Amino acid sequence: MTDALKIAIVGYKFMGKAHSNAYHKAGRFFELPIELVLQTACGRHRDGLAEFANRWGWRETATSWREVVARDDIDIVDISSPTDTHREIAIAAAEAGKHILCEKPMSLSAADALSMCAAVKRAGVTHAIGHNYRRVPAIRLAKQMIEDGKLGELYHWRGTYLQDWIVDPNFPLTWHLQQERAGYGPHGDLNSHSVDLARYLVGEIKSVQCTLTQFIDQRPLPDEEREAAFAAAVGQGTGHVTVDDASFMVVEFDNGALGSFEASRFATGRKNYNYFEIYGSKGSLCFNLERLNELQFFSREDPPTAQGFKTILVTESSHPYIANWWPPGHSIGYEHTFIHQVVDFVRCIQGATEMEPNFFDGLRTMEVLDAAALSSREGRRVDVPRAEV
Amino acid sequence: MTDALKIAIVGYKFMGKAHSNAYHKAGRFFELPIELVLQTACGRHRDGLAEFANRWGWRETATSWREVVARDDIDIVDISSPTDTHREIAIAAAEAGKHILCEKPMSLSAADALSMCAAVKRAGVTHAIGHNYRRVPAIRLAKQMIEDGKLGELYHWRGTYLQDWIVDPNFPLTWHLQQERAGYGPHGDLNSHSVDLARYLVGEIKSVQCTLTQFIDQRPLPDEEREAAFAAAVGQGTGHVTVDDASFMVVEFDNGALGSFEASRFATGRKNYNYFEIYGSKGSLCFNLERLNELQFFSREDPPTAQGFKTILVTESSHPYIANWWPPGHSIGYEHTFIHQVVDFVRCIQGATEMEPNFFDGLRTMEVLDAAALSSREGRRVDVPRAEV
Amino acid sequence: MTDALKIAIVGYKFMGKAHSNAYHKAGRFFELPIELVLQTACGRHRDGLAEFANRWGWRETATSWREVVARDDIDIVDISSPTDTHREIAIAAAEAGKHILCEKPMSLSAADALSMCAAVKRAGVTHAIGHNYRRVPAIRLAKQMIEDGKLGELYHWRGTYLQDWIVDPNFPLTWHLQQERAGYGPHGDLNSHSVDLARYLVGEIKSVQCTLTQFIDQRPLPDEEREAAFAAAVGQGTGHVTVDDASFMVVEFDNGALGSFEASRFATGRKNYNYFEIYGSKGSLCFNLERLNELQFFSREDPPTAQGFKTILVTESSHPYIANWWPPGHSIGYEHTFIHQVVDFVRCIQGATEMEPNFFDGLRTMEVLDAAALSSREGRRVDVPRAEV
Amino acid sequence: MTDALKIAIVGYKFMGKAHSNAYHKAGRFFELPIELVLQTACGRHRDGLAEFANRWGWRETATSWREVVARDDIDIVDISSPTDTHREIAIAAAEAGKHILCEKPMSLSAADALSMCAAVKRAGVTHAIGHNYRRVPAIRLAKQMIEDGKLGELYHWRGTYLQDWIVDPNFPLTWHLQQERAGYGPHGDLNSHSVDLARYLVGEIKSVQCTLTQFIDQRPLPDEEREAAFAAAVGQGTGHVTVDDASFMVVEFDNGALGSFEASRFATGRKNYNYFEIYGSKGSLCFNLERLNELQFFSREDPPTAQGFKTILVTESSHPYIANWWPPGHSIGYEHTFIHQVVDFVRCIQGATEMEPNFFDGLRTMEVLDAAALSSREGRRVDVPRAEV
Repeated sequence: MTDALKIAIVGYKFMGKAHSNAYHKAGRFFELPIELVLQTACGRHRDGLAEFANRWGWRETATSWREVVARDDIDIVDISSPTDTHREIAIAAAEAGKHILCEKPMSLSAADALSMCAAVKRAGVTHAIGHNYRRVPAIRLAKQMIEDGKLGELYHWRGTYLQDWIVDPNFPLTWHLQQERAGYGPHGDLNSHSVDLARYLVGEIKSVQCTLTQFIDQRPLPDEEREAAFAAAVGQGTGHVTVDDASFMVVEFDNGALGSFEASRFATGRKNYNYFEIYGSKGSLCFNLERLNELQFFSREDPPTAQGFKTILVTESSHPYIANWWPPGHSIGYEHTFIHQVVDFVRCIQGATEMEPNFFDGLRTMEVLDAAALSSREGRRVDVPRAEV
Repeated sequence: MTDALKIAIVGYKFMGKAHSNAYHKAGRFFELPIELVLQTACGRHRDGLAEFANRWGWRETATSWREVVARDDIDIVDISSPTDTHREIAIAAAEAGKHILCEKPMSLSAADALSMCAAVKRAGVTHAIGHNYRRVPAIRLAKQMIEDGKLGELYHWRGTYLQDWIVDPNFPLTWHLQQERAGYGPHGDLNSHSVDLARYLVGEIKSVQCTLTQFIDQRPLPDEEREAAFAAAVGQGTGHVTVDDASFMVVEFDNGALGSFEASRFATGRKNYNYFEIYGSKGSLCFNLERLNELQFFSREDPPTAQGFKTILVTESSHPYIANWWPPGHSIGYEHTFIHQVVDFVRCIQGATEMEPNFFDGLRTMEVLDAAALSSREGRRVDVPRAEV
Repeated sequence: MTDALKIAIVGYKFMGKAHSNAYHKAGRFFELPIELVLQTACGRHRDGLAEFANRWGWRETATSWREVVARDDIDIVDISSPTDTHREIAIAAAEAGKHILCEKPMSLSAADALSMCAAVKRAGVTHAIGHNYRRVPAIRLAKQMIEDGKLGELYHWRGTYLQDWIVDPNFPLTWHLQQERAGYGPHGDLNSHSVDLARYLVGEIKSVQCTLTQFIDQRPLPDEEREAAFAAAVGQGTGHVTVDDASFMVVEFDNGALGSFEASRFATGRKNYNYFEIYGSKGSLCFNLERLNELQFFSREDPPTAQGFKTILVTESSHPYIANWWPPGHSIGYEHTFIHQVVDFVRCIQGATEMEPNFFDGLRTMEVLDAAALSSREGRRVDVPRAEV
Repeated sequence: MTDALKIAIVGYKFMGKAHSNAYHKAGRFFELPIELVLQTACGRHRDGLAEFANRWGWRETATSWREVVARDDIDIVDISSPTDTHREIAIAAAEAGKHILCEKPMSLSAADALSMCAAVKRAGVTHAIGHNYRRVPAIRLAKQMIEDGKLGELYHWRGTYLQDWIVDPNFPLTWHLQQERAGYGPHGDLNSHSVDLARYLVGEIKSVQCTLTQFIDQRPLPDEEREAAFAAAVGQGTGHVTVDDASFMVVEFDNGALGSFEASRFATGRKNYNYFEIYGSKGSLCFNLERLNELQFFSREDPPTAQGFKTILVTESSHPYIANWWPPGHSIGYEHTFIHQVVDFVRCIQGATEMEPNFFDGLRTMEVLDAAALSSREGRRVDVPRAEV
């Protein structure tokens, strides 16, 4: 038996950086049952890849993910590449018996997600989807409070995830704005996080009404692609945006709760505003990712003259994950969620428990998103299907 | 020509109090072109009515609104009674040539609202709907900023109106919970305010998707009615709730903006949480009625390193209505909106300008609410009709 | 025995308006044991006075407060004129057996305050000082919570009162900036409020360290006075500011608590920022006048994982004064504190209880302010004297 | 010439962890001109030390700081041990020609600080004091804004640093509560941070008035020491607290600004509430360490109807240090300040610029603290001396 887990990562941009940092820090701040080895960094562009591997201490680089995934010495495959690549890499990794940590959104469609689920189920490997926000201490605390009955029966989920990075019409047509690469716009990128949190905290979603909207349909091509396009069609420096710019939904949950989701990249002033409220018969909770060390809590069980929304500073050692960090009042940040994810993932691989959120969770989320897109197209309330894996 | 306007009010509960106070204070804090006379208070229950009239200085009382409305000496009819009475009173008042201030929601249905509009149009009287929140100084300021182009092209409206006064299952079955008296639950009571504000600030609503939900379908009868029910059917102390407990909507505006509305009486901890956000290409605004002296504003035109949501304390003499109140930093409250409403209404009667929001506005709002209810029942996106008056 | 109390008010500016409004509204919203009659408005400038009396419904006007105070038919003398006039009017009113409501700060000095106290004590009349903020519902609630032991032993008071209305060097030399009229600058105007609240909530102040500062020592004369000055001394259009622009203090309380006070008119962006924090062994409170419907409360008795500062929306009918106003979540404003003051004052006159804060409270506050000014001049910690009345 | 800097750290508790993490991450997120080697971890207790060194990747351990400091191969000495050890280690390290990063507070007294300054000056080494909060991006941004004139002339500093970790009377008598080990209580531990920030942002402090207070003078001995005490004196399980529990100050700055400092460990509910406000003639700033990704800014140069305190989310790539972290809206935490400190310190060693805050800054801060303690004892305003180094 090995005393280390060797990791291969595919992708070296934003998520590559966040995951690499997490692999390094997990064992310093937490008791890990086994050593993590940053073995292979895999990507298409040699130069950027080498710089990345060097900076983050990956032992080697590779440009073919197929070869890497097939290697005997790799234990974990980390899929941090664009959405359209997830399905193929995940299935190959599963078939090669690797444990898989796959970034979100899981896939271009629920159908793809289903085939990925089948693969990991057959292979019996540990699988995770990178909905890292489940591991914000404040959100884990929210989960505990709901399970402890502090909210009573749940009536409402009000979730929103707002950004503004493409408000400028000159923002170029990157892969995030192309359906064949990204699947959806904020409907996938942002709503997938919100739907995952709603499922985690409130329960399964039964039906959905949705409207997807686009505000800007043509954008300049990114520098590299502009030249190519120029060769193909003289004078053409722009391309069509083929994903949504915003997605608003109303949903019914299995437990009778009524919910809403609002995702947009056109919410001027909101940078990473992943915000939600949960209302129950006994109490309520609010969370804002831009103030991730805080959780708001209202309890009807407080004395009548002293009820109110309380700002819990989630930095006490009795709070989830916090004992391993700093003293009370010393905040943590965005990157810490990835470290918690690595710690839990590794513990699951070592047999502690089943990982969550896993591919099956990712599938459920994709089913909601696909049903919502259908609702938007057909203008009707759509029941969310639940495929059996 | 008369040098005073004589007012008759129908209804003497919550709104009767708010309006009476407003009639008294309007002329003290603002320059009114004419004196207001609190002439007749009209209601069904003699005892409560007399106490009300005495406390608030109404010269006389009456139990028949029909007689009062027909009197020559009355100039203004103030309809502050339950929703199901609005149509009949308003039409009679219009036919008698009275100016009308009618509480919201305007009516039980858009059809009723249409007939009310026809009546005031024929009569040529001044008419107003009591969506008093348009007259919160911060909201007037928001309107100015939008008209001045500070937000640019509008992308999103996110409106919510949350309360929690019936979370307790023992809260009795008052008239607000009965369809024949109230029309809708929070869908009418709260969403009517939000839709009015959205129309005021963003524009007309084109289509709507909606789900209405009910969480508690039986409630104890109120004390007085419980006895009657007991006589009718031995042992029966509860009755059916026949309105919605919550209403969530997604809407498209004529101008392309995508919007949401969420109204509920089951949002534990929210007392009168009328909150909205508006996002545009150049800036954004947020408002919370529970902090009504404040307006949040974000501008993309601020220097890049110094952008952020700004809390404008709307208590400067240069802000709408404020010069007549107190020095900077000295807040006003809920009741002040009614005073502003009276001031503007009287000025309109005196010919200054057309009153807004008026019956035609009320009709548009009822059309959105009815279309939304239809969407909820039929599970499809519904285009909002716009009846011609 | 009379069935009404006749009021004479001296002064008709900012406080004249606030008090007049309060006399009108008190009996409408609260059960008053007796009718209030707005009898005589008294001031030096005939024109402004007449306009004021007319607008606010004072039955008559007078330019000699001495004559008015001596009249048999007056029951209450309301002193809303500048600080330098308080002593003389109050003593005369007391000697004439009138009940007295005197605006704050009480006087130019503790010595003056002491003579005022002696007068009301001799006369046996009801006397009040207009520290209206004690009657913000949130502050009354704070008082209740402290008395109920929710804070335990008190460790700290951190009070601040910040404004910015004279940051502009061209703001003219009004009477507020002249020692002979105002006594102190913000040290008196603002700190008097804060010291009153600290005494009310925490206890008596034992010693004080203080520094008074002036940022701008010359200012343009106000329009009317500029002409006069011009006549007196050609070319001279400015005058000396003779009060402080800011006052910062550190104090020890009798009960061992350590406290601070910071008052300034040079705190750019703060309009009426009367803010304080109280820390105790079991809990803590924070209050901000610019959000006067809210009170922040932290309790060490909450469960360890769910502790935090709670924002109590002080608009429940179980909260002080609120049952007479509006439903939960419907905020009140600055002016309501004056109405509460009138209600309580009248009830005290009718024999219910002793009024607070009264002249003896005002004296204690003046003693702290004078001791602090001495500390600033002499650069030493000064024990606060407590004169016996 | 070497291509790496070898570090020896003395101390392995809270600061040992924070610094070790920083040494590891600095080169991954920032471009460092040279490699950092975590060479030697030095401490008194072999077991804890070994666990620390192993977890954090220190190559070796040592129990004699004297030997380590004298070694030729060490380039940097990091002093993370209790305050009473700083002077001796720092002087020895300077004499051995090492660059020094010394934790705060710098020393037990200004006199000690002066001798440390003399030593580093003689040696010509690079020296730093660990006032890491200067390197919160929001605070660097505040500095930039002040230097750019956005605040105009400065009128006020209102700084507070509140914690509550010893409110419980059973909290044991750790070294932080003993004068011979810690020098001061919160007066040193917390006020040293605040004074450093005030000097950084506002300027030098000229005079001080201060009151130090103690609320609990006896506490149980910590477990290890209780046994020893038991041996020495039967039945004795408690010891005297010999430092302050709270310290409140009023200060005058050289530039005429009036300021306040309030530090306490008895502010129930405050965990690490390092909060300050700065007011100037053109604008104002507020900062709260518990929300360290935010900076509040008010500008009198905004349009009159749209002025207000703006919450700048300091996560833009144009903000200090942020380009090396995450996209907008993705927050960082407490530990990042140490990474910035390492990056800047190493760049200074490599000759970029003079390090700040350095030993001379630490001396100035100690002079303020000592003057304040004298003011508290003697009850008088004390001018702050400025020793020449």
